[in-house]
Amino acid sequence: MAQTSIIVRLELDHDTVSFGDVAAVVSKAGGDITSIDVIRSGKESSIRDITVDAGEHSEALIVESLKNLIGIKLINVSDRTFLVHLGGKIVIQPTLPIKNREDLSQVYTPGVAKVCKAIHENPSKAYSLTIKRNTVAVISDGTAVLGLGDVGPYAAAPVMEGKAMLFKQLAGVDAFPLCLDTRDTEEIIRTIKAVSPIFGGINLEDISSPRCFEIEQRLTEELDIPIFHDDQHGTAVVVIAGLLNALKIVNKRINHVRIVVNGIGAAGVSICKILLDAGVTRLVPVDKEGAIVYGGEYEQPMWQWLAEQPQVERESGSLKEVIRGADVFIGVSRGGLLNGDDVQSMNEKSIVFALANPEPEVNPEEALKHVAVLATGRSDYPNQINNVLVFPGLFRGALDCRAKRINEPMKLAAARAIASVVSDIELNEQYIIPSIFNDKVVPAVRKAIVETAILTGVARRIPPDFR
Amino acid sequence: MAQTSIIVRLELDHDTVSFGDVAAVVSKAGGDITSIDVIRSGKESSIRDITVDAGEHSEALIVESLKNLIGIKLINVSDRTFLVHLGGKIVIQPTLPIKNREDLSQVYTPGVAKVCKAIHENPSKAYSLTIKRNTVAVISDGTAVLGLGDVGPYAAAPVMEGKAMLFKQLAGVDAFPLCLDTRDTEEIIRTIKAVSPIFGGINLEDISSPRCFEIEQRLTEELDIPIFHDDQHGTAVVVIAGLLNALKIVNKRINHVRIVVNGIGAAGVSICKILLDAGVTRLVPVDKEGAIVYGGEYEQPMWQWLAEQPQVERESGSLKEVIRGADVFIGVSRGGLLNGDDVQSMNEKSIVFALANPEPEVNPEEALKHVAVLATGRSDYPNQINNVLVFPGLFRGALDCRAKRINEPMKLAAARAIASVVSDIELNEQYIIPSIFNDKVVPAVRKAIVETAILTGVARRIPPDFR
Repeated sequence: MAQTSIIVRLELDHDTVSFGDVAAVVSKAGGDITSIDVIRSGKESSIRDITVDAGEHSEALIVESLKNLIGIKLINVSDRTFLVHLGGKIVIQPTLPIKNREDLSQVYTPGVAKVCKAIHENPSKAYSLTIKRNTVAVISDGTAVLGLGDVGPYAAAPVMEGKAMLFKQLAGVDAFPLCLDTRDTEEIIRTIKAVSPIFGGINLEDISSPRCFEIEQRLTEELDIPIFHDDQHGTAVVVIAGLLNALKIVNKRINHVRIVVNGIGAAGVSICKILLDAGVTRLVPVDKEGAIVYGGEYEQPMWQWLAEQPQVERESGSLKEVIRGADVFIGVSRGGLLNGDDVQSMNEKSIVFALANPEPEVNPEEALKHVAVLATGRSDYPNQINNVLVFPGLFRGALDCRAKRINEPMKLAAARAIASVVSDIELNEQYIIPSIFNDKVVPAVRKAIVETAILTGVARRIPPDFR
Repeated sequence: MAQTSIIVRLELDHDTVSFGDVAAVVSKAGGDITSIDVIRSGKESSIRDITVDAGEHSEALIVESLKNLIGIKLINVSDRTFLVHLGGKIVIQPTLPIKNREDLSQVYTPGVAKVCKAIHENPSKAYSLTIKRNTVAVISDGTAVLGLGDVGPYAAAPVMEGKAMLFKQLAGVDAFPLCLDTRDTEEIIRTIKAVSPIFGGINLEDISSPRCFEIEQRLTEELDIPIFHDDQHGTAVVVIAGLLNALKIVNKRINHVRIVVNGIGAAGVSICKILLDAGVTRLVPVDKEGAIVYGGEYEQPMWQWLAEQPQVERESGSLKEVIRGADVFIGVSRGGLLNGDDVQSMNEKSIVFALANPEPEVNPEEALKHVAVLATGRSDYPNQINNVLVFPGLFRGALDCRAKRINEPMKLAAARAIASVVSDIELNEQYIIPSIFNDKVVPAVRKAIVETAILTGVARRIPPDFR
């Protein structure tokens, strides 16, 4: 695992020790040397950086063993993950150099004035004459970062920067991270509205539930650029994509199956919504207090909304009760809620998406004995449900057609597009969802988004390849 | 002038017309062909893009003449300035590629979690592990853009992007433009505070007076990163730099001269402040209602502040009255306020900085008959006072030493550094200020900023070259 690799800088005294001795010690301590850089080489001694894959638990032992090796001076131990973060992970570059006064007078004063005037007269020209056309904000308040929770805006930044890297590399989208030093719903809404003019879209990220619902809804109503809370809809889109393919394998139809969704927070609500749009007729949303039932009354507005949908079942019960006889379990909650018996109590040819991270709702080894298809959020099992499959292509499409918003049909279309990247011949229990490095994903999602945006009237531009 | 060049796409019918005919027509209409690109070349016809320097007034005539030339089909006319703005002028790039799952797990989940944790435990690590170390926001509300005035946040973007280009090219600073869709002082302060965590500094830009004073002051008090309103202090720093060198030429001392500053808005206030810090003893601030006098009472807090400074003169009067006998005139107001007689009424060996743009306070040709040194904001006269000389090096220095703020001694030190780039041998009436392309400027300003930040206790880090 790369995130456990370390870089050790050593000085070797050539009279007493050889590099072979170093390699032997590292190997014995459980490490694997993956690269060597000679920093300085002298007659009597040399300084080298050795990169060691230290596995989960060997780092301390490797360092200790090297310290004890005679003839070695341990200068420094660096963690590779920290090294790649030094100074941040994105930079801003001009599109052209300013070589002389003429260049300057075009990109800055005085020439820039006529470009400003043109936009002042027709603000939609901001899309052609500024970075708005290709630029997205990745915005978090740091309240629900990965599995870490509320770590605040400073600690959220590395995730947002990583996301900006993925936006550019996978879809050519320029993304800039903004980490907000406020948790107040109204303040967040006001701030994002205030900074919106330079952006063509807003990717909300890691904002805790239930504030995330209101923030997204209000911004969608009050701004004319697409707003997308990735933790809700990115996850939902890729879950539906995986589910569509899993249902093909078990030969069941989406309008016939009974689906339990556990964890009705940010992602769970969006999953339920898209499932209903996709034609699900038997839905059982479950949270800590058990099943949310049709006709029930709930304080949380999103739960109340679910309780008003006729496709939601009437029977109450705990998770372990309602999962009996279900065709599909989708967990976006926390680890260790279910055991093998619970999974066995499901209908035959069951589908289990246990997406809690790092520990899934049910032990994958246990689940695999009973289910037809298993998916998790982890990369060490097949069928990883990863929203990196969604946001790059989704925003690429939304920017290209200047979508006013991302509506439900666009999300469902994106899910179908991701599912379609796995052909019928490739499809099997171990492969229901494409890899994030599959280069067909972004174009497929983009195409689905643009087509659906045009069809549903939210596109403000027809990209050349759709004319 | 590059900002008047156009690109004309033509189809030439080879039987009826030659490229020589085209060149002759363009030349006759007052244009100058500066480059030719063959787009498509066939037996019977060819398509070419010709770039033409059209001067101030010839564009329409050139286009008309080409339309009338037989054998020519005019396909398109583009303005080069607009072309360089297409799609915006900056992009965001990852610092390294994500080639595989191992890379992904370092820059994004799951490996990024330990970087987030490290910052959560010690927020100052944001400076080493995120883009904060090298990133500045260029923020405007679009209320006072160039000579255009209140054009709003969308139309302000091309200026802010141009500034971001200059930041990177001249000083390696990553700068991102934020254009705010609000004019409310409190809302602007709140918004900037909310987005501040990702930035190592804030460059305020083109915010109208008097709101800019409170916004900058409050942000300086409430945030621990440097805040710098360039229209105030960038201009002031470069004015003082020019003045220090101009005084050397006329052999007068700054604590002896009588200085009239006209236009007590954003830049004027800052100029007065630095002048007082630099030792000026006879200052006459003038605005529309005449001289601001010592002991007077004014509603505007900054004018009141000036009225309380003992170095400010007691005599009231109009600009034309108080300029009599002055050694120095610094105008940051509007064009055509003074004539040759007014300048002649100044003390002998007078210095005039007429910085209104595009029309200076006094006609430069008129002024030159009477003054010892003239400077303007224009590039077509010697001694252009341009704040591009200031902000790149200033923020380079502030970021490198993690300055908490930019204080008055740092501004004065930056001014002296810029002045010092012009050596005593080079110094003359036509050359009091270095060119923005002089590569000694940024290092000199950076050094002055870092040294002074350390001396005045606002530096939180000693850069390696100062240890």
